[in-house]
Amino acid sequence: MNNRRTERGIDVPVQWKLDNHQPLMIFTKDINLDEPEEVEIYVEGEQYNISLGGRRVKNGNEKGFTKIILPAEPTQLKIKVVNHATVPAIFVQGETVKSDTSWMTSPLEDERITVNMEHPDSPSGIYMNAGSGNLKDPNVKPSEFKLPTSPMDYVEVKEMKGGKLYDFGKETFGFIKFHNLSGTGKVRLQYGETSYEALDKEHCETFRTYDIPKGKADFVVEHSNALRYVFVTADDAQYDDVSLLYEYSPVEYRASFKCNDEQLNKIWEVGRYTLELTTREVFIDGIKRDRWAWSGDALQSYLMNYYMFFDQETTKRTMYTLRGNDPVICHLNNIMEYSFYWFVGIYDYYLYTKDEHFLRQIYPKMESLMDFILERTNERGLVEGLKGDWIYIDWFDHDVDVAGEVSFEQIVYCKSLETMAMCADILGVETEAKKYKKLAEGVRSKLGDFWDDEKQAFVFNRKDGENSEQVTKHANMFAIFYDYVTDMQKQQIKNSVILNDEVPAISTPYMRFYELEAMCTLDEQAYVLNEMKDYWGGMLELGATSFWEKYNPEHEGLEHYAMYGRPFGKSLCHAWGASPIYLLGKYFVGVKPTKAGYEEFEIRPVLGGLEWFESSVPTPNGDIVVYASKNKISVSATEGNGVLIFKSKTTPKTDSGTIEKIEGNEYQLRINGDGAKVNVEYEGL
Amino acid sequence: MNNRRTERGIDVPVQWKLDNHQPLMIFTKDINLDEPEEVEIYVEGEQYNISLGGRRVKNGNEKGFTKIILPAEPTQLKIKVVNHATVPAIFVQGETVKSDTSWMTSPLEDERITVNMEHPDSPSGIYMNAGSGNLKDPNVKPSEFKLPTSPMDYVEVKEMKGGKLYDFGKETFGFIKFHNLSGTGKVRLQYGETSYEALDKEHCETFRTYDIPKGKADFVVEHSNALRYVFVTADDAQYDDVSLLYEYSPVEYRASFKCNDEQLNKIWEVGRYTLELTTREVFIDGIKRDRWAWSGDALQSYLMNYYMFFDQETTKRTMYTLRGNDPVICHLNNIMEYSFYWFVGIYDYYLYTKDEHFLRQIYPKMESLMDFILERTNERGLVEGLKGDWIYIDWFDHDVDVAGEVSFEQIVYCKSLETMAMCADILGVETEAKKYKKLAEGVRSKLGDFWDDEKQAFVFNRKDGENSEQVTKHANMFAIFYDYVTDMQKQQIKNSVILNDEVPAISTPYMRFYELEAMCTLDEQAYVLNEMKDYWGGMLELGATSFWEKYNPEHEGLEHYAMYGRPFGKSLCHAWGASPIYLLGKYFVGVKPTKAGYEEFEIRPVLGGLEWFESSVPTPNGDIVVYASKNKISVSATEGNGVLIFKSKTTPKTDSGTIEKIEGNEYQLRINGDGAKVNVEYEGL
Repeated sequence: MNNRRTERGIDVPVQWKLDNHQPLMIFTKDINLDEPEEVEIYVEGEQYNISLGGRRVKNGNEKGFTKIILPAEPTQLKIKVVNHATVPAIFVQGETVKSDTSWMTSPLEDERITVNMEHPDSPSGIYMNAGSGNLKDPNVKPSEFKLPTSPMDYVEVKEMKGGKLYDFGKETFGFIKFHNLSGTGKVRLQYGETSYEALDKEHCETFRTYDIPKGKADFVVEHSNALRYVFVTADDAQYDDVSLLYEYSPVEYRASFKCNDEQLNKIWEVGRYTLELTTREVFIDGIKRDRWAWSGDALQSYLMNYYMFFDQETTKRTMYTLRGNDPVICHLNNIMEYSFYWFVGIYDYYLYTKDEHFLRQIYPKMESLMDFILERTNERGLVEGLKGDWIYIDWFDHDVDVAGEVSFEQIVYCKSLETMAMCADILGVETEAKKYKKLAEGVRSKLGDFWDDEKQAFVFNRKDGENSEQVTKHANMFAIFYDYVTDMQKQQIKNSVILNDEVPAISTPYMRFYELEAMCTLDEQAYVLNEMKDYWGGMLELGATSFWEKYNPEHEGLEHYAMYGRPFGKSLCHAWGASPIYLLGKYFVGVKPTKAGYEEFEIRPVLGGLEWFESSVPTPNGDIVVYASKNKISVSATEGNGVLIFKSKTTPKTDSGTIEKIEGNEYQLRINGDGAKVNVEYEGL
Repeated sequence: MNNRRTERGIDVPVQWKLDNHQPLMIFTKDINLDEPEEVEIYVEGEQYNISLGGRRVKNGNEKGFTKIILPAEPTQLKIKVVNHATVPAIFVQGETVKSDTSWMTSPLEDERITVNMEHPDSPSGIYMNAGSGNLKDPNVKPSEFKLPTSPMDYVEVKEMKGGKLYDFGKETFGFIKFHNLSGTGKVRLQYGETSYEALDKEHCETFRTYDIPKGKADFVVEHSNALRYVFVTADDAQYDDVSLLYEYSPVEYRASFKCNDEQLNKIWEVGRYTLELTTREVFIDGIKRDRWAWSGDALQSYLMNYYMFFDQETTKRTMYTLRGNDPVICHLNNIMEYSFYWFVGIYDYYLYTKDEHFLRQIYPKMESLMDFILERTNERGLVEGLKGDWIYIDWFDHDVDVAGEVSFEQIVYCKSLETMAMCADILGVETEAKKYKKLAEGVRSKLGDFWDDEKQAFVFNRKDGENSEQVTKHANMFAIFYDYVTDMQKQQIKNSVILNDEVPAISTPYMRFYELEAMCTLDEQAYVLNEMKDYWGGMLELGATSFWEKYNPEHEGLEHYAMYGRPFGKSLCHAWGASPIYLLGKYFVGVKPTKAGYEEFEIRPVLGGLEWFESSVPTPNGDIVVYASKNKISVSATEGNGVLIFKSKTTPKTDSGTIEKIEGNEYQLRINGDGAKVNVEYEGL
C-alpha cells in the first residue's frame, strides 16, 4: 500500500520508517482427530518443514506443496516457513483441519519464548493468531493478493489537442483498459480529477507511459490511479475503445440516510462514496496523491466507518499498518499526536465492536509504543516535542510556536493513557491498569495549568512554566467532546473560542470534523446543519463528486484545485472530507454505543432544523433504524439494550413500554434489541 | 546463508528468530564538486527517488536506472529506496562520486532521527555507513550475489550398485556439473563425506534429485553441498562426465607454518583447509549439516582467522548476522552464553584490528543486547537462565544441573561487561563506560562465591545461596586465560581440575580449544603439542582431510561417523576442529597484539618440544615472521612496536639492539616494525 505514490512520474516513498515482516514464522495447531485425515499443505516460502508432535514429517522435496496424513490422536501440527521476500504463509486444506485464524503463529519456538521483563504480567505478544481471510484458491499466493475490479465505461469522449479526453462522469479509481490495442511506440495517459488537470501536460499530478505491446490484444495498464478524466495520446496506436477496471474494496453499505433536504441527502451520498473510494486495503488519506495510511486521517475514517460499512477488518489492518514493528524509534508517521490518535482509535474500536480478542493481540504493541512515549515525558510527566518529533496538529495559516508543553498534545496523550488503562483492565492486567490510571490522572490534573480564566480558553502552549498568549481552537474543542472540562467551561469555550472570530478559523475539513463534533455535543445541531449545507454543499455546487482535502469558499475557478504550490496539488477525494456521514449518524440520527459493542446504546434523534429523516445505523451484528419527524419517532434495534432519549413540548405517547421523564422536557424510553418497531408521538421543540 | 540446511530432503530452518532488512533506506552523500559531473544511478528496489539539496530530481520513470548531473556546488545527494523483497541497494558510477562506504544510510530522514532516551550520550545507531564491496558490475544485483566457483575434477570413479561413485579426493564443497547431459527422468545424487555415506541410500545426510532438462547440454545442479564422494544414479540419462564447481570465499592465505614435525605441518594445513571451507559468506559451523552461524563456533573462527586470513569483512558480517535486528527478544541462537561470546568476539576483534569505526557502528546494537541481559539479571546482579533461555556450555556426557547461578555464565558475562566498558571508553561515552565498569566489578567481585577451597576449583553452579557439588572444566579454564584468578589458583585449577581424571573429560574439540588454550597460558606447550599430535593426528590417521565436529579415539570403524543418533550425523568438516592453527600461532610462534591493532605486540616463541619452526603471522597491514630453533631466533615485523620475549640458559646475543634481562632466565628485545630481520643466538631450555 505504501509504495504506490508517484508525483509527475517520480516515485514518492513514505516519509517515515517502513517495517518488514518476520521472515521465519512458526504456525501451530493442536489437533485431536477421531479419524486419520489427509490434508493438503501449500506454503509460500523459500524453505519450510512440517512436524507432528515434534517429529519432522518428510516434506518430499516438493516446492511449496505436500500432502500428509494426520493421525487420530491428540498432537500438534507445526509448519515452519522461511520467506524473506514476502510474508510466510500456509494454505491447509483438509476435511476438518484448515488454515484459519485458530492457528497460532510466532517467530520463536514455543520453548524459546522469553518473558517480557518490562511487562512481566502482560499477555505475551510473541504468540498470535494467524491472519486469515479472502484467499480461497491455493494457487493464488497471498503475496499476489489484489483488490477486485469491475468494468466501467466512460460517459463522454472528446477528440482534442491531438488525443482523446475520456470522462468517466465522476471521481473514480482503477486500471485503464485499451480494447484491441495494436501499433508501435507508446501510449501516454494523463489522469485528472478535473478535465483541466487531465489536459495539462505540464501540471497534471499523475501520468503514465506504456510501451504498446506487439500484436493486437486488450491491454490493461499496470497501475491503478485516481481519475475522473483521462487524456490519452499515442504514437502509432489503434484501439477500438477505452474503459476502466474500477478497483474497489468490497465493503458493504450497511447504513442508509434520507431526509427532507435533498442537498443533505446528496452530501451523505457523496460522503459515502468518498469513504468508499478511500477504503482500500487500509483506510488511506486520498486516492490521487499520498495513498498512504496516516494515523490522523485514519482515526476519522474509523469513526465514519462505524456509521457506514462497520468493516472491522479494514480498521484492524490499518491499525497494524500504522503501528509497524518494534522497536519504536519514532512517532507514527513521525507525528507526535499521531501516536496518540492510534490509541484513541483503539479506544473507539473497542467501544463500537467489543472485540476483546483484538485488544489481546495488539496490547503488546500498545505497551511498546507507550514505553517509547513515557521515556520521553518531561519532569512534569507531560509530553514535549523532542529532536525528531513533528508536532503537526493542523495546517495553520498563521505562525504557531509548538515549543514546550503544547496543550493539545497533553489532551490526546491523556486519552491515550486512559486507553491503556481501559485495555489493561479488560485484559485483567491489574498492575498495568493501576499504573496507567495513575499516569492519566497525573496528566489530567495538569490540564488546568493551560486554562486561562481571562481568555476563558486553553492556551496553546506553556514554556518554562509560563503560559503563552496563543489560543487556537484545537485543544479547546477536544476538551469538550472528551468531557475534560466542566459544563460551564464548555459554554465558555463555545463563545470565547469556537464562535469567536478573533481566534483563527480552521481551514481544513480535517479539523472542521472535530469543531462540528464539539458543537454537536453542545446541542448545536442547527448550527452544524447550516455549516454542512454551506461548506459541503458549496463543494457540490462546484460539481464535486467526492469531497476534497481542503475547500475555501472564497476561492474562484481553478484556484480551488491548487494546493502545496501546485495547480492541481489538491486531492479531490479525501477521506477526511466525508465527516457529515459521521456527524449525521452520531449527532442527528443520534445513535451511539454506551457500553462496548452496542451491548448498551443510546438513540438521541435531533432534527436540528430538518423536517424529518430516516436512517439505519449498523451495529456489530445488527442494525438500528430510526425515523424522526417533528411529531413522530420510530425506532427498532436488532441487538443490545438501548434507550431512546428525546425532548418534547408535550407529554409523549408510545405503543410499546413506558416513557420516563428525565427532567424538564427530556424523556427516555427503553428499547429492546428484538427488532420490534417502537413508535413515539411527541412534539419536537 | 541461514536457509540452506536440509536433512535427507527435508528443509531445516534455523532454530532461532530470523530478522529481515529495513525495506526503506535513505542513502546520502554530501558532495562539493569543482565541476558538474554526470553520474549513472542504478537502484535495486521497487520504488526510489533522488534529490539534490532537498529538491527532488526527475527519475524519468526508468525502472532501476537513471542518469543525473551533479552541480558544481556544495549539496547533498540523497537516494531513497524501497525494497521489501531484498535489501535496498544503489550503484552509483561517476567520475568522482561512487557508491562506496562514504555514503550514509538510515531508515529515517535526518530530521526525524530521535534521541535514544535510554542511552542519550550514545553515538546514534540510526545513521550508519552504507555497506559496500564486491559488486563492480551494475547489472549484477546485490541480491544475486554468489560466491565464486572454480572447476574441479574427481580423482576416481567406480561403477557400482547401479550407479557411479565419484571420489573428489578430499572433503570439498560445491555444485555438481553434468557434462552434455541428455535423457529423460531424474538424476539422483547422494552426497557423502565418506564413501559409506554416499552409498547409503537410507542414511546419507544429504541427497538431491533433479529432473533431466530437455535437450543435450551441460547441467549444473542448483544446490551446493559438502562432499568428498557423490553417488550418482539416473533414470535414462547419458552424460559425458561429471565434475564439481568448487564454491569458495576468496580469502587470502596470509599465514604460513612449517616445523620439523611433518605430522604437525599436516595438522596445520588440514586446519587451514577446514577453516577455509567453513569460511563462506559468514563463518559457519560446518559445511555438511547446519551451515549456520553459531556464536560459539564463530568466536573460535574469528580467533583462528586472525592467525590465517585476517579477513575483517567476514568477521564483521558474521557479527552482524548473529546479532540481528532490534528488539532483542531472546539470546543469540537462543543460548545465553552465545550472547556473551558475541561481546567477547568484539573485544577480540578490536584488539586484533583497532577498527574503531566498526565499534561506532555496532555499539548501539551492543547496548540493546546488553539492555536485554541487564533486565534479566537477578537481585545479586548475576545471570540465571530464565524461561526461554538455553544454557548450553558444551555437550555433556553426564547429567548437569544448569539451574540458578552458573559459574561459567558469570565469567563470560563479566567479560561482556568489560567489553562494553572498553568500547564506551574508546568511543568517549564516559557515563556508559563508568556504568559498565561498575557492573563488571560487581560481577567480578562475586566470582569468588563459586570458589571451593577444598576442591580448589570453581563449582558449576549455586542455587538458593548454596554452592553445588558439581565441578566441570569450563568455568575453571576460562578463569585462567581471562586472568580472573591468582597465579596460585591457576596452578590449583591445572592440577585439581584440568589434569584431574575425576573431573569429567571434555568430549568436543569445541571446548578442547579452550582447555588447550588454558594449558598454553600456563606454559604447558609440551603437553599441548602432545595432545594435538594425539588427538588431531588421530583424525589424520583415520584419513581425515578436514577436522571433525567430534572425535573419540576409542571408537572403531563406522562409529566415527555417527552422531545425534544417526549413522552419518557427524560433520567431518567443522570449524571448531581447526583450533591447532590458533594455538600454534598464538602460543608456539607466540605472536599476539598487546595494544589494539598490533600497535604493540609480543613475540614469545615456545618450541614446546619441536626442533624448530618458521611461521608468518598476519597483522592488519603487515606480517610478523618468526623462526625459532633451540639456539636461534629470527624475527621481523612490518608494522607496530614489538617485544621478543624468550628464555635462555645462557646469555643471548643479537645483531640488532639490546637484549634486556627480565628476570631469571627470561629476556626481552625490542622489535621495530621496519621489516628488518633480527637474529638472536641463545640456548633454549
